Amino acid sequence: GVTGVCKVVKGPSLDTVLTNLAKINNSRERARKLFEWLIHPIPPKAFFRETWEKKPILIKRQNQEYYNGLFSTGEFDRILRDDEVQFGVNLDVTSYSNGKRETHNPPGRALPFKVWDFYERGCSLRMLNPQAFSSTVWNVLSILQEQFNSMVGANVYLTPAGTQGFAPHYDDIEAFLVQLEGKKHWRVYNPRSDNEVLPVVSSPNFSQSEIGEQVLDIVLEAGDLLYFPRGFIHQANCLPDDHSLHITISSYQRNSWGDLLQKVVPVALEMAMEEDVEFRRGLPTDYLTYMGVQNSDKEDPRRSMFTAQVKDLVRRLADFAPIDAAVDHKAKDFMYDCLPPLLTPEEKASSVQGVLARWENGGTKDTTIHLKEHTKICLIRGGVARLTSGGDSVVLCHTTDNSRVYHKEDPKSFEIRDEHTDALEFLIHSYPKFVSVGSLPCDSFDNKISLAKFLFEQGGDVSDKQEVLG
Amino acid sequence: GVTGVCKVVKGPSLDTVLTNLAKINNSRERARKLFEWLIHPIPPKAFFRETWEKKPILIKRQNQEYYNGLFSTGEFDRILRDDEVQFGVNLDVTSYSNGKRETHNPPGRALPFKVWDFYERGCSLRMLNPQAFSSTVWNVLSILQEQFNSMVGANVYLTPAGTQGFAPHYDDIEAFLVQLEGKKHWRVYNPRSDNEVLPVVSSPNFSQSEIGEQVLDIVLEAGDLLYFPRGFIHQANCLPDDHSLHITISSYQRNSWGDLLQKVVPVALEMAMEEDVEFRRGLPTDYLTYMGVQNSDKEDPRRSMFTAQVKDLVRRLADFAPIDAAVDHKAKDFMYDCLPPLLTPEEKASSVQGVLARWENGGTKDTTIHLKEHTKICLIRGGVARLTSGGDSVVLCHTTDNSRVYHKEDPKSFEIRDEHTDALEFLIHSYPKFVSVGSLPCDSFDNKISLAKFLFEQGGDVSDKQEVLG
Amino acid sequence: GVTGVCKVVKGPSLDTVLTNLAKINNSRERARKLFEWLIHPIPPKAFFRETWEKKPILIKRQNQEYYNGLFSTGEFDRILRDDEVQFGVNLDVTSYSNGKRETHNPPGRALPFKVWDFYERGCSLRMLNPQAFSSTVWNVLSILQEQFNSMVGANVYLTPAGTQGFAPHYDDIEAFLVQLEGKKHWRVYNPRSDNEVLPVVSSPNFSQSEIGEQVLDIVLEAGDLLYFPRGFIHQANCLPDDHSLHITISSYQRNSWGDLLQKVVPVALEMAMEEDVEFRRGLPTDYLTYMGVQNSDKEDPRRSMFTAQVKDLVRRLADFAPIDAAVDHKAKDFMYDCLPPLLTPEEKASSVQGVLARWENGGTKDTTIHLKEHTKICLIRGGVARLTSGGDSVVLCHTTDNSRVYHKEDPKSFEIRDEHTDALEFLIHSYPKFVSVGSLPCDSFDNKISLAKFLFEQGGDVSDKQEVLG
Amino acid sequence: GVTGVCKVVKGPSLDTVLTNLAKINNSRERARKLFEWLIHPIPPKAFFRETWEKKPILIKRQNQEYYNGLFSTGEFDRILRDDEVQFGVNLDVTSYSNGKRETHNPPGRALPFKVWDFYERGCSLRMLNPQAFSSTVWNVLSILQEQFNSMVGANVYLTPAGTQGFAPHYDDIEAFLVQLEGKKHWRVYNPRSDNEVLPVVSSPNFSQSEIGEQVLDIVLEAGDLLYFPRGFIHQANCLPDDHSLHITISSYQRNSWGDLLQKVVPVALEMAMEEDVEFRRGLPTDYLTYMGVQNSDKEDPRRSMFTAQVKDLVRRLADFAPIDAAVDHKAKDFMYDCLPPLLTPEEKASSVQGVLARWENGGTKDTTIHLKEHTKICLIRGGVARLTSGGDSVVLCHTTDNSRVYHKEDPKSFEIRDEHTDALEFLIHSYPKFVSVGSLPCDSFDNKISLAKFLFEQGGDVSDKQEVLG
Repeated sequence: GVTGVCKVVKGPSLDTVLTNLAKINNSRERARKLFEWLIHPIPPKAFFRETWEKKPILIKRQNQEYYNGLFSTGEFDRILRDDEVQFGVNLDVTSYSNGKRETHNPPGRALPFKVWDFYERGCSLRMLNPQAFSSTVWNVLSILQEQFNSMVGANVYLTPAGTQGFAPHYDDIEAFLVQLEGKKHWRVYNPRSDNEVLPVVSSPNFSQSEIGEQVLDIVLEAGDLLYFPRGFIHQANCLPDDHSLHITISSYQRNSWGDLLQKVVPVALEMAMEEDVEFRRGLPTDYLTYMGVQNSDKEDPRRSMFTAQVKDLVRRLADFAPIDAAVDHKAKDFMYDCLPPLLTPEEKASSVQGVLARWENGGTKDTTIHLKEHTKICLIRGGVARLTSGGDSVVLCHTTDNSRVYHKEDPKSFEIRDEHTDALEFLIHSYPKFVSVGSLPCDSFDNKISLAKFLFEQGGDVSDKQEVLG
Repeated sequence: GVTGVCKVVKGPSLDTVLTNLAKINNSRERARKLFEWLIHPIPPKAFFRETWEKKPILIKRQNQEYYNGLFSTGEFDRILRDDEVQFGVNLDVTSYSNGKRETHNPPGRALPFKVWDFYERGCSLRMLNPQAFSSTVWNVLSILQEQFNSMVGANVYLTPAGTQGFAPHYDDIEAFLVQLEGKKHWRVYNPRSDNEVLPVVSSPNFSQSEIGEQVLDIVLEAGDLLYFPRGFIHQANCLPDDHSLHITISSYQRNSWGDLLQKVVPVALEMAMEEDVEFRRGLPTDYLTYMGVQNSDKEDPRRSMFTAQVKDLVRRLADFAPIDAAVDHKAKDFMYDCLPPLLTPEEKASSVQGVLARWENGGTKDTTIHLKEHTKICLIRGGVARLTSGGDSVVLCHTTDNSRVYHKEDPKSFEIRDEHTDALEFLIHSYPKFVSVGSLPCDSFDNKISLAKFLFEQGGDVSDKQEVLG
Repeated sequence: GVTGVCKVVKGPSLDTVLTNLAKINNSRERARKLFEWLIHPIPPKAFFRETWEKKPILIKRQNQEYYNGLFSTGEFDRILRDDEVQFGVNLDVTSYSNGKRETHNPPGRALPFKVWDFYERGCSLRMLNPQAFSSTVWNVLSILQEQFNSMVGANVYLTPAGTQGFAPHYDDIEAFLVQLEGKKHWRVYNPRSDNEVLPVVSSPNFSQSEIGEQVLDIVLEAGDLLYFPRGFIHQANCLPDDHSLHITISSYQRNSWGDLLQKVVPVALEMAMEEDVEFRRGLPTDYLTYMGVQNSDKEDPRRSMFTAQVKDLVRRLADFAPIDAAVDHKAKDFMYDCLPPLLTPEEKASSVQGVLARWENGGTKDTTIHLKEHTKICLIRGGVARLTSGGDSVVLCHTTDNSRVYHKEDPKSFEIRDEHTDALEFLIHSYPKFVSVGSLPCDSFDNKISLAKFLFEQGGDVSDKQEVLG
Repeated sequence: GVTGVCKVVKGPSLDTVLTNLAKINNSRERARKLFEWLIHPIPPKAFFRETWEKKPILIKRQNQEYYNGLFSTGEFDRILRDDEVQFGVNLDVTSYSNGKRETHNPPGRALPFKVWDFYERGCSLRMLNPQAFSSTVWNVLSILQEQFNSMVGANVYLTPAGTQGFAPHYDDIEAFLVQLEGKKHWRVYNPRSDNEVLPVVSSPNFSQSEIGEQVLDIVLEAGDLLYFPRGFIHQANCLPDDHSLHITISSYQRNSWGDLLQKVVPVALEMAMEEDVEFRRGLPTDYLTYMGVQNSDKEDPRRSMFTAQVKDLVRRLADFAPIDAAVDHKAKDFMYDCLPPLLTPEEKASSVQGVLARWENGGTKDTTIHLKEHTKICLIRGGVARLTSGGDSVVLCHTTDNSRVYHKEDPKSFEIRDEHTDALEFLIHSYPKFVSVGSLPCDSFDNKISLAKFLFEQGGDVSDKQEVLG
């Protein structure tokens, strides 16, 4: 069948997991381990080979505490009380009954007494970007984005007992549903047609008669995980005896080969027109008399010659495809989408935020940054910075100054001076190894120091082991 | 050599040519004949096979009157006097001396005393769209556009004796230079490199040291024609003893296979993503770690697999190329660019403009349009209307309400009702034959009449022989 | 009663009138005479004293030919045929029947067969700017605008026998209705309340029950004139036996003291704040506790003190009113609104358009402009140019390059150099007297010549008597 | 002399002051007391009578601790470390030496090590809106704004020993300079001319030769206060032996009679044109021939008549001045500018933020708001809400949802239903008295409850004593 169900043994709590992860020096390794924990006991390799983008899978754990610490309704309540949660922006109030899906957002701030009033009256609550309010969610997503190399987002859903909040539909993302509290009854359905396999955009709401072949009908309990690929229709409702809280972790929105081709193809054509005169030759002077919809039923040998020529030229575009440049384009988009890294106190201490410069006893103290030849430096995360081509110059994109709120900050990057390019590439490829400032391949000591200082001031540190761009 | 020079015998004057052309019922035939006259004695077939887009050619006629009636400095003067010619919009004042190219346009209206003052001081004058002011130029260009199926434009150049008005440069159009008065010394140079053969955009002004290998050094006299393809650098100066007036007739700007591909490729990709799941599959989760400029020097087998996959998908786009739809897109652009047809008095009389409805002796007269089953109708020009796909509906684009001033009117089109589509296609494909209203393939007599009436009101007629869309 | 009716004897035709007017050298005198003819036999002084802005007046002439030559339905037909008349832009098709007012404009060009079809079906036709199509209307309005010093516009109305085209309403302009053909039954009603006397904006359409006290019920015949001030409700219908053609000449839209005050008052306040510290002193710190709508019922002595202070300051604004500058502001608006002058052939010959510079026999002729000390110059119209303050500089606004189409051209003006200001003022105040270039109060001969040349190139001439700015 | 200097005895610390103020139920009384403390020992009445907007005054306290707790360099350092301070947005780095004033803001976040590095190199630091980062500053300013009924803002200035950070200049606000740490040498100069007394806009930077007559040359020490009105030029520098930290509390920017008149006058003119026909009468038809700058030297009796008429009409505007409505306009602007109130824990508990509704033990608790007839309600501050006319309806503006960051939130208001208007006015005028829901002048019990509930949900409470709109 298309779905799998596995039983799992108890594992370490999220707290322990994150503490242990913090000891791993390599952020990509850390991402791999966290994802392993998320889908435990399925080995990631097997998951990506057999399940990813193919079929739903359910992991039943019999361990209500497995995901404890990730999020809770208590934290939901705390956030409503302390943070500036706005209806429609950060929180949606919804209902689905008698086949009718409604949104009930009033304007303004979502204060607890209003939100809980909706909840008591049977409405579902969807928090749209819990990572902006919960540091743990932020931490988990920011780690996982190095696993997927595609933006990782999340929504939290709180549903009262005996209700359903949403109509059946499919999404445009790979979805990992983590059940946090209570339980929920889920039904998942196959894509309805080949064209809806791995779709590019989400569906509208469906009626019950439009949703096709059911492949899963299960109850998700706290500690369980449900994964399904984009295109699988789904709906869920709470049983009469318990509410439900789950978080959906999502990724791979618009991250397909076709999305890459949208970066590749226009540039390939531009380059072909520059480099190959065949693309610049004039069309036949009479082509409008036999081509075009108006002439599509004509039997004219010139039609097939014309068509063959167009197809041949399209195929020849492959030879002009600027693949690395297009990947850079995708990478830039991804880095704009990224959450910034959540730094540990130790990381902060060894980065620019830990510089001791301060006001004390009526004067400034420790205002100098000490960077010497033997100072060792390292990127603070593998994915925190990337060298890309920016037309004529080389540009370093980075995520350290991104906001927890999606696209609240503009994309961050700076031009790299020629004399620093090699050293930066060296530093990036050395990750996760620390390298000494003196070993940077720059042609002068001053350039080595100036690069190190520059990177540090964008987010680095100054003991004898420093992390840069954090 | 790349250029040819032919001697020609005297031929009919433009006046006679146009009068004879007006007797030809088929506008495409008319276009062919006019072009034949333009490049006489070279046969068009030979021209397009051996010369077009390949090399310059000079036609020496020894017949100063050959092009008489097309345009003259006298008409130039008349236009300045009578029409609203604006410096910078309709007329440029230029000079080129000691290697320096300058433009001298003051603001405002180009009145004769100002223009002739510039001319006396050695400036060249370029009239930018003589078709807006001269009916003959309008007529010639509007006929020729059916020969090229690409916009045909013109500039007029008047140069004082002993001066040069422009720096060496190449253009992005096929150029037919018709010498009208006086003579001019021309030098033409080969494209400087493969990349500048049939270029997409015009060049900047060159210095004398940048212009490469000369292929032509001739004096053009009244009645002569000089053709050269886009990309051939050229410069011209007047000899001390005579001024020069010539008109450059141009076409094939951005009308290459590559320009068509710019319509084809984005839609092909969109369709591929809709129809073929291979284009919708996710990218490898780790692709950013080995692809991109940052990794372009890495030796990693995944790089070549990734590259092969992208190229394969690009090639497969050929199978999704919506060629007729893309041609329609080009056709629409062309029809937007077109000059409107110049109607003869007879054509006006048998078209909507000839309807007799009028005010006479204190009342209206002849206000009814008589269209009957046996009334015969025909498009007023072969290229005056075109059926194109407009998303879900069928759209008829037409040029009859275009302006003599480029893009002054918005593109003109109207949606065609389902019950009229077949009849319209029949009418278009019947051109230049007149067909009776009764023979239109509509399912009812009313539909036949309503279509005929509709077309007529957009530009048709009402005797027993009518022309529509004029 | 509020209306008067006068019988008049036959007078000269418009043709004779305009020919005679052309002999008058002073455009303001010409304007006075033309207006005298328009309202003949009422003397203008009496008209402005007793009727203007006060009450309707009817002039019955018993002379159908009095206004002949101003406009006709024949010319209407000719314009439809020859000019680019657009429905909704230049022509409205309307009807009023059973209390319902409708507009029937289709999109696109108003071709005769469509327009006359509407007319036959009982629709009224309103041509919105006949001055753009008829040189006589242009001439008449451009002369009259110097009488009113406010924009003069016109609409033409053609109404089929037995119909009414418009609902009862009042306008925001002074209206002179000139009956050109046929006859029309008019009913005029008093303003309904003090607030609707001389209103600032036009009314909506009224129902028959809303229109108040009737003061006039007459039939206007060809040659008759009906005047009524803004605010007088009116409606008209054709009798069963004849169609009607009339032209409404209008002026004084937004040309009241209040409209001037809108230019005066903001600047007065700005100047008061700059020059008088009383306007810059702080408000009482507690004023929000007793002023404002919330406190308007409070009895608090501070309220009346506060009110008195505000009123006192408002009154003191009178001392800062920049009246001449505000008038200039109005004058600039007016000159932007103005029709350009229609020049006679003689005027053209002695102005820049008459410069002999031309192309003849293969070369330029007479390209020099001869301006000498004894050359006599004069503005081509009294109202064609005006010196205004333009912030730090002096600016000459002029109407010669305006378009016959309202606001089609941007406002025209140029900065005047300090050394030319006095001479320009001298020239303007000398109008209609010609003055010699040598007599201009400039400090050098060169400045005299350069000013004369400058003015001439904007619209002047070069025999020994020249007119400038035409 | 224009300045006074008073010696003062020790007083209570800010902490004690604020604690005592919190016990006062009336926010206007609280504002008065806090201002009294600020300028102690000068009695406010005397201050406003003799000093405010008139002359500088210095209060020497010999008590370095007087303003302790308001702000400190330690807090400055803490803010840099913890908050998102941006150069150019929240912090300026400046210097003034050798007569040259410079700004040194780099882009991006103002991290401590960068800021202190600038400071060490002799730059001054100006924090632009300390109220966004310091709760105490927020509290003090939000209280004082009820004293001034005009926005109260603040800047903090930190200057290294032996330096000057700013060039001499004057401001457009009333300034209270509170010396917090160290000392600073101040020089204050009289307005240079009548036009610069109480100026509307701030001056540019002056050179030392442009600053006129000095009226004050003193050293401000911690605990001292210096006040000077807008228009008084000032400059300050640190002595070699000590740094300086002061906060400038400012108010009365654009809060003059003239600023009110800018609301009054355009509406007065609009109303005059509606109600008085004299304003709607046409201008004389010939006014452009004798009025305007071009005619300003003419001696024409019509000029003085015209001028007299304009002045008379300007003066009559006073009778149409909509003073309460204009004050409402000012009040709305002020409420948009206001800081939100800083609520005490007790106030929060008795307001909407204290509603007990929450998530506890897997379910919602206390979600109902209990408002009964005998529940007593009161505005949470005197200035927190205001009834204003909003065209046809009545609108309640309020400040409770404003942001600590200037204008970050849109203006807040809601329309008031007719049946609630009287009750709201009653509630506002009752302030600071609590009134029972039952005593509200509504025509039904339901309306009383619904208004109370509505106000509460915008910021009220639910024990037997509740505060609304907090």
